[in-house]
Amino acid sequence: MASMGARARAAAETLRLAPAARRSAAIAAAADALRARSPEILAANAADLAAATSLKDRLRLDGEGIEAISRALRGLASRPDVIGEEMERWSRPSGLDIARVRTPIGVVGMIYESRPNVTADAAALCLRSANALILRPGSEALRSCLAIHSAIAAGLAESGLPEDCVQIVPTSDRDAVGMMLEGLGGAIDLLIPRGGAALVERVVREAKVPTLGHLEGLCHSYVHSSADVAMALRIVADAKMRRTSVCGATETLLVDRAIAPALVPRLAGALEGCELRGDSEARRLVPMAAAAEADWSTEYLAPILAVRIVSGLDEAVDHIRRYGTGHTEAIVCSDEAAAEAFLARVDSAIVMWNASTQFADGGEFGFGAEIGIATGRLHARGPVGAEQLTSFKYQIRGSGQTRG
Amino acid sequence: MASMGARARAAAETLRLAPAARRSAAIAAAADALRARSPEILAANAADLAAATSLKDRLRLDGEGIEAISRALRGLASRPDVIGEEMERWSRPSGLDIARVRTPIGVVGMIYESRPNVTADAAALCLRSANALILRPGSEALRSCLAIHSAIAAGLAESGLPEDCVQIVPTSDRDAVGMMLEGLGGAIDLLIPRGGAALVERVVREAKVPTLGHLEGLCHSYVHSSADVAMALRIVADAKMRRTSVCGATETLLVDRAIAPALVPRLAGALEGCELRGDSEARRLVPMAAAAEADWSTEYLAPILAVRIVSGLDEAVDHIRRYGTGHTEAIVCSDEAAAEAFLARVDSAIVMWNASTQFADGGEFGFGAEIGIATGRLHARGPVGAEQLTSFKYQIRGSGQTRG
Repeated sequence: MASMGARARAAAETLRLAPAARRSAAIAAAADALRARSPEILAANAADLAAATSLKDRLRLDGEGIEAISRALRGLASRPDVIGEEMERWSRPSGLDIARVRTPIGVVGMIYESRPNVTADAAALCLRSANALILRPGSEALRSCLAIHSAIAAGLAESGLPEDCVQIVPTSDRDAVGMMLEGLGGAIDLLIPRGGAALVERVVREAKVPTLGHLEGLCHSYVHSSADVAMALRIVADAKMRRTSVCGATETLLVDRAIAPALVPRLAGALEGCELRGDSEARRLVPMAAAAEADWSTEYLAPILAVRIVSGLDEAVDHIRRYGTGHTEAIVCSDEAAAEAFLARVDSAIVMWNASTQFADGGEFGFGAEIGIATGRLHARGPVGAEQLTSFKYQIRGSGQTRG
Repeated sequence: MASMGARARAAAETLRLAPAARRSAAIAAAADALRARSPEILAANAADLAAATSLKDRLRLDGEGIEAISRALRGLASRPDVIGEEMERWSRPSGLDIARVRTPIGVVGMIYESRPNVTADAAALCLRSANALILRPGSEALRSCLAIHSAIAAGLAESGLPEDCVQIVPTSDRDAVGMMLEGLGGAIDLLIPRGGAALVERVVREAKVPTLGHLEGLCHSYVHSSADVAMALRIVADAKMRRTSVCGATETLLVDRAIAPALVPRLAGALEGCELRGDSEARRLVPMAAAAEADWSTEYLAPILAVRIVSGLDEAVDHIRRYGTGHTEAIVCSDEAAAEAFLARVDSAIVMWNASTQFADGGEFGFGAEIGIATGRLHARGPVGAEQLTSFKYQIRGSGQTRG
């Protein structure tokens, strides 16, 4: 493991100075290799599935899934490069010319579970952002991830980049996670956890190096009194039911008292197959299960929706402040002043007006791909794509200036 | 202490929504109050100085010093506000309009020692960036810092902002640092240590919340073979001797073999009062003390300069990679290609061409003031001013979009 750290650091130095075209070529070659090795990857995935006892949905790959991963990599390969970009440039009265230019972070460590596609997405995003990567997949997905990693390694080899640019911890050794949390002797600059709450909590709590990720996405949709009821029903149905297991799925619906009689009775019809759990006021409008206090702070990731009636924007914003996790919240309304107040006052990574909270991902933002959604306030917030995996430095050009 | 955290969080919420003009007014009023309370502050400082056994230089304030702090605050009060700024905005094929807007971080904790002016600088920068602040000065500076804090509190009161926006830990209780390192029960979003290496190391090692700061500034100046010798001597003299105790001071001089005979013999004359410690090759050119291996990794913060002869750019960059701390490095040369190669290849927060490393501060960058220099690669790098103390969020405006 210690040697992996040193090799990652050396690879990061090579990557940092490698031209963008070479990194693009590596991503494109990895996309091709993934497609070519589809049978081996599917066989490895079948073996993982046969041994798995839970989370099979997240683990499962099929031909179309591999095709989608390959397409995403092709997309990233053809995107403009982020490294070396001049972010700002200005001159000082001293005559100094100061440029802020984008640089890689260095070495990223990724600790994840269940979803094998993270292997390819993380590798491609790190190549796009010129960071070296150390992957530590969950043991339940190890065979699948090793097979995908072989395709990435083939892409690196073909483009003349060192294979150490993307390393995978070869065993399911539990100690490996501990060593990564310690930073591998100073070799890891940033740790990204991705998986269940227990994994993410452990990484955030124990890591000795900076982390980027999100613990929970308890997202709210709020229907303001000025909303178009049909639009509200469409948006809420999508925000809750399109995919219930994603972090951008709405878990709590807040409804203005004035519009509740028109909206709440139609919820069950619009959200077929969804269990509604309402406060006493919602239940007076239409029969549904009773929401307990715990419901307001539960990320269901399931077809369950907590419903609360509020007196207006202030109460909605207060509810979100108290129970929200800073991920994504949406208001549905036609009153522009109410919308702008919501967008200004709610301090979540993503705040929306008249759109489904399920738009909260890097693809929909136009980032090409994402490594996750950050709910912290430092470095990056919201979808983490290639640009969010960069740092910067200041280049100063002078003509002999001294401070004196 | 726990109540300080809760009060800071509440104040942060008020600050986040307070108009820029009110925060500007608070900074300006604090600048006036500092000037008006100059006698009390000087008396408190005299008491601190009388009790102090070391670091008296950093602790000492005089009338001109207070005037300078007040002027810096006035400057910050009149700068354009950073909060709410639209950093980027774009539209997606889905019709969604995505804006990235600057937001505060929340609550900043500052753990520092010796320099009382940090109290005012940090408070003003946090007001400019709409963050609440909890200050924990060193016990040796406590009286001075409490007196300065009173002026800040007066400025807050005058502008109608809660005094909890800037709190100071009232005792020199050692437990206070431990509680801040734990994040005060989730109340602190970012910790900034400032002081000696022991303090900064402890904070970075033990903090359970993100930190921003720098451990060391082992800065290099490199004189390339194409340098103008007179310019090089001027720059090196300033980089080393202007102030030897600042983190941007040059500690090691690297000199190309080809230019060494013209430059090294003139160093002693240009850097009067500076002890030179050279490698064997430098010592063959002119008598000086011998540099030991430890000299290449020592931040002297004193009038001592380590001198090493190198074969060219590659060896200089390698030396910096091995011994540098990622703070600030400069090349002196007339060959533009060599300069650009240095600026690209050296991965420090600040890289310079033909300028003194002592330009490495927020004032010289045009940031108005700085809370320190960051040498990490995440969130902020280089001088940390008001803009670097911000986060952002995405505001998305739609017209009923669903993912489907």
